Amino acid sequence: MEKERIIILGAGNGGQAMAAFISLAGYEVVLYDRYEEAIAPILQKGGIELSGVSGKGFARLVKVTTDLHEALSKTGLILVVLPAFAHAYVAEQIAPLLREDDRIVLSPGSTGGALEFRKIFSEHGAPKGVKVGETNTLIYACRISGPGHVKILGVKEFLGVTALPATDTQALLEPLKEIYPQTQAVENVLSTGLNNMNPIFHVFPTLMNLGWLEATKGNFRFYYEGITPSVAKLVEAVDRERMMLCQSLGISTLSGMEWQKKFYGAKGNVLPEILQSNRAYEEIQAPSSKETRLITEDVPMGLVPMAEIAKIAGVPTPFMDSAILLASEIMGQDYRTTGRNLGAMGLVGLNKEELLRRVGGSGFSEH
Amino acid sequence: MEKERIIILGAGNGGQAMAAFISLAGYEVVLYDRYEEAIAPILQKGGIELSGVSGKGFARLVKVTTDLHEALSKTGLILVVLPAFAHAYVAEQIAPLLREDDRIVLSPGSTGGALEFRKIFSEHGAPKGVKVGETNTLIYACRISGPGHVKILGVKEFLGVTALPATDTQALLEPLKEIYPQTQAVENVLSTGLNNMNPIFHVFPTLMNLGWLEATKGNFRFYYEGITPSVAKLVEAVDRERMMLCQSLGISTLSGMEWQKKFYGAKGNVLPEILQSNRAYEEIQAPSSKETRLITEDVPMGLVPMAEIAKIAGVPTPFMDSAILLASEIMGQDYRTTGRNLGAMGLVGLNKEELLRRVGGSGFSEH
Repeated sequence: MEKERIIILGAGNGGQAMAAFISLAGYEVVLYDRYEEAIAPILQKGGIELSGVSGKGFARLVKVTTDLHEALSKTGLILVVLPAFAHAYVAEQIAPLLREDDRIVLSPGSTGGALEFRKIFSEHGAPKGVKVGETNTLIYACRISGPGHVKILGVKEFLGVTALPATDTQALLEPLKEIYPQTQAVENVLSTGLNNMNPIFHVFPTLMNLGWLEATKGNFRFYYEGITPSVAKLVEAVDRERMMLCQSLGISTLSGMEWQKKFYGAKGNVLPEILQSNRAYEEIQAPSSKETRLITEDVPMGLVPMAEIAKIAGVPTPFMDSAILLASEIMGQDYRTTGRNLGAMGLVGLNKEELLRRVGGSGFSEH
Repeated sequence: MEKERIIILGAGNGGQAMAAFISLAGYEVVLYDRYEEAIAPILQKGGIELSGVSGKGFARLVKVTTDLHEALSKTGLILVVLPAFAHAYVAEQIAPLLREDDRIVLSPGSTGGALEFRKIFSEHGAPKGVKVGETNTLIYACRISGPGHVKILGVKEFLGVTALPATDTQALLEPLKEIYPQTQAVENVLSTGLNNMNPIFHVFPTLMNLGWLEATKGNFRFYYEGITPSVAKLVEAVDRERMMLCQSLGISTLSGMEWQKKFYGAKGNVLPEILQSNRAYEEIQAPSSKETRLITEDVPMGLVPMAEIAKIAGVPTPFMDSAILLASEIMGQDYRTTGRNLGAMGLVGLNKEELLRRVGGSGFSEH
């Protein structure tokens, strides 16, 4: 049986790694990026050189383009591998190009990605049959190590996927599992979105080290030096709010500490010790300025949608609210307005029961 | 005419400097501290050696004691020169020892000091005639430079004083002005309290450098390195709230930037530049841990009473509220409860007009 076409939107670190790996696994792969600079090295080289823990090889792609019409000229499984702040743009652009049987997986969706896609699709006339879902994380730790060369440093042992509504999940799970056998269905998009740990581990540690990173252009190790006992207290405070939100909505979750232990094999009793036993974090430097995805993605597409969903759930989130306020002031924009608020997610006016119905109830789960 | 007795409660940097200077100016000075260690070097030496910009000399005091009964055995002007978190303790202790004609000046009161004294006095049966007021600042920049030796590094050119109610101010202004001619009356205790700039310049710069100060034990210059552009934005945000509060209550004020220029001769167009032109700040290191008066005094006795008074005024204070929340979490206590809230200041249930009446209206001003 011929393998289906995989269309990857986004040629950053993750998009290139997935494109190369999936192509080497025998699929027809199309790679799109909005920016010429992103794809030029690949066009020049005629493909992507893959190295690292998932194998080595030179991956030829069937198409590498900045033209969405061209990227979507034939049907296939569409994987959106972009920073969350680019989701809305891509959703608007592809809405008129989609077919009834298209399937889209945001990989990952950050928090509320699939909800935002659905909202935009309904406003921009995408076919009703299109299936939209998201994963809980990017499958790889990876980086572009040279022009047309991508290196995979690590692979997640668990990839959660779900659709909006969750009753569509099977249609996304099957093709994804064929590529990544570690894929499993999770409850619904509240599960992927509220188990997005990036805002938890990124935002307060960036804010509480703001002077240090601006004064030194990030010349310290983010996790190994920047997560001091007091910084860790705020990480735990915001994580408690996230967990209370999960509990209120019936979403299974782990605490940040448990998550570190389960997915990274980290060890210890207190958070700084646990993070500093995670060897994957050892060399990670602090961002060199406030202009970092640790703020520009994780606040508007992480804490904002969490705090907004918490309003529906009736869960107070003073620490999330404070982080959003401080980040907004520093960045000179109101993330509550520009970020993924209830309006952007199409959730205005819903109560808790309606929200749970919208995402597909808690009925669907492979577990 | 014989000069009156001056009773100084608190033998820290400020208390020792004032005791020495006032004694050398020809007054009978009594010095009290709760802790034996604080006064032992002075007792051993038989007085305090003064040096620095306000003159040199060896000051003999009439009494140096840890016994409040002894300190207050004869009447005099009582100057409370203590960290604000020690005010409540001293107020309770002296309440039963006071006489009808006693006068007390908190120097300074931080925010709400005189209000807290009045509240405690009324609960602990202090005589009704006692006059209570506060200054806007400590008159000196000074430090204990050795056992029984204090050095005055700088003297404020303006010392504001007021009483609670403001109709009592004249009784405090006169004796204080005799010692410090730069003393002037200000409107009321909302003026001294809301023009307390310490919380503005201390709290966010400490919080936003929390990782740095914990990781390095404060091995950087607090104002010269720690006030980066983004940190400065939060200083300005909380200062705007303070100014709106002043405006709402009819209290004259300066912005933090104007204040730096007026009182320190600082120059520049943006806050980091202005602070880094203030030579008095050049050598000031960051605190070596979270256990610093920049948090433990300036949050519960600065931001908390400001944010609480703002509730009465109907002025929103999201930045103050955030700083209080984060500091409380870090320090493991709820500063909104333990700090100078409306209850501690005796202001529960008051509306704006009643508050203004309580502090003595806006009628009294020497200007």
